[in-house]
Amino acid sequence: MRKITIVTTGGTLEKVYDDATGTLVNRHSNVAHMLSGLRLEETRLCIHELMNKDSLHMTDEDRELILSTVRGVLGEPGITGVLVLHGTDTMCVTGEKLCAELAGLAVPVILTGAMRPFEMKDSDALQNLTEALFATSVLAPGVYVVSHGRALRFPGVVKNREKRTFEHV
Amino acid sequence: MRKITIVTTGGTLEKVYDDATGTLVNRHSNVAHMLSGLRLEETRLCIHELMNKDSLHMTDEDRELILSTVRGVLGEPGITGVLVLHGTDTMCVTGEKLCAELAGLAVPVILTGAMRPFEMKDSDALQNLTEALFATSVLAPGVYVVSHGRALRFPGVVKNREKRTFEHV
Amino acid sequence: MRKITIVTTGGTLEKVYDDATGTLVNRHSNVAHMLSGLRLEETRLCIHELMNKDSLHMTDEDRELILSTVRGVLGEPGITGVLVLHGTDTMCVTGEKLCAELAGLAVPVILTGAMRPFEMKDSDALQNLTEALFATSVLAPGVYVVSHGRALRFPGVVKNREKRTFEHV
Amino acid sequence: MRKITIVTTGGTLEKVYDDATGTLVNRHSNVAHMLSGLRLEETRLCIHELMNKDSLHMTDEDRELILSTVRGVLGEPGITGVLVLHGTDTMCVTGEKLCAELAGLAVPVILTGAMRPFEMKDSDALQNLTEALFATSVLAPGVYVVSHGRALRFPGVVKNREKRTFEHV
Repeated sequence: MRKITIVTTGGTLEKVYDDATGTLVNRHSNVAHMLSGLRLEETRLCIHELMNKDSLHMTDEDRELILSTVRGVLGEPGITGVLVLHGTDTMCVTGEKLCAELAGLAVPVILTGAMRPFEMKDSDALQNLTEALFATSVLAPGVYVVSHGRALRFPGVVKNREKRTFEHV
Repeated sequence: MRKITIVTTGGTLEKVYDDATGTLVNRHSNVAHMLSGLRLEETRLCIHELMNKDSLHMTDEDRELILSTVRGVLGEPGITGVLVLHGTDTMCVTGEKLCAELAGLAVPVILTGAMRPFEMKDSDALQNLTEALFATSVLAPGVYVVSHGRALRFPGVVKNREKRTFEHV
Repeated sequence: MRKITIVTTGGTLEKVYDDATGTLVNRHSNVAHMLSGLRLEETRLCIHELMNKDSLHMTDEDRELILSTVRGVLGEPGITGVLVLHGTDTMCVTGEKLCAELAGLAVPVILTGAMRPFEMKDSDALQNLTEALFATSVLAPGVYVVSHGRALRFPGVVKNREKRTFEHV
Repeated sequence: MRKITIVTTGGTLEKVYDDATGTLVNRHSNVAHMLSGLRLEETRLCIHELMNKDSLHMTDEDRELILSTVRGVLGEPGITGVLVLHGTDTMCVTGEKLCAELAGLAVPVILTGAMRPFEMKDSDALQNLTEALFATSVLAPGVYVVSHGRALRFPGVVKNREKRTFEHV
């Protein structure tokens, strides 16, 4: 039985449509809805809804909070992996920080997000979430971005805005 | 065989996700994609992509253009109905104009749109398009909004912003 | 406010996947699930789950039961339309019977079904249900098949197996 | 750049709806359609459509053909992983055979399938395909079933019919 905690912070993946303004906003986490479409055997999932932010608006304090939250989760007995749902624009800033400050990792810490919101028909959200959850079982301890079929290990991961994906520098 | 022309003007129904900015925009018509999910027997459809505008940005000139376009379509031989895809915010302004200026209608002219873009999983776009296409076969000549299970005939149709639907005054 | 009763009898539209045998079966009505994807203003819906049969297996007794059920619904105060969800293979047998035996109709009685189950991604079920619900508001009293963009009035409607749709003889 | 070959054999995952008979059948591979919904960076995919069979109907000759096909693919220059799409009922028979006869593997050979066809709305096919493709990048050489969030290595994998998933004996 694997035990995974998902820390949600917002980002495009979790944006929902606001009918009143006709715009996409981070209002609440919809990860539970995403998970309802997946079958995960021998898995115990915890969801920790930490914040609902476009990652362009994340502050240093927000990143400190993410770091301390992940550290706390890593201290829980039996934990086998941590997932952080995060906006893609500054995902690598957070990833580098987690990589630098989390010493002696025993399990993988995986960041993922999406280029198109889960609420859109043609979204990469469920693919990335599926890959990231699977990755917690098979990757060596470390901090990663998992997305679009790949696991990229920190340090040295960046967003390629033109290709709208992640890559190693 | 019925012969219907769909005049597209943009609006929420046709908004698409712009990955670069993370916003929803009117860029091109996606009515052909919507139609690919429907089975319509004994129907000949023409698509006339007129403009791609949020209806809040429509000018008097735009409405003149819609009027003259619909008038032109109504003059085509064998036409049995006209559909106008339109943003909901000023749909009723356009509807009142068409109602006032199109005298002696021989077929129904139907406006429809959506509260949520077709590209979103939980959209009312396909329902409204399905109803509007069906309505062209069964409604008496006149100008209507067709949406959310109802046909509302002009004059006297307004958008109820709170309920996010249309109603008679 | 319109008041519609949906009488469900099974058919392809309502077939569900049986994981144990890997086949599609009529086990329970899923019309409530279908309706959850539609927005219907000013509508009061009743669902009457009558039977769950492939229409190839319907007996004379089944058709008597459908007739008496529809007759009962038509006697309810304020009813504005009746919908019968039915397998397509013998839908026209039932339609002819309803047409012959329901004298003096005050509202439309509409039969609909699907060529592919609602549970399949590429299904005509939701389109036909959307059209049939809309049709109850706009058709004259009579017995009809509503499907694939058209309303066909009994008597004289048949299934065209090759084209997999309905038509007038 | 990873280079993966997908060998398709049929099974529930690839069953399609036959409108004429109203049943689910293995007629052609739909893996290309499934892949169109995924974004896979730095990946070169080959599809080898080998057969279209319910795995209950697979013969010893069929399994010999699968073995020789996989062996051939493994001999291609630059190959980094092989995926076999297979019905779940006898997937483990094929897996044990591949495990026993493919000596000295340099890359992972992964079998996957689905409990519900991809064509159904509520299917596990895309999840399993997503996981299996991701797994080719991260698993050690060996023969596996990848499904429902897990990688299970042969020998010793069986289908649990009651739970409708796979597990180690």
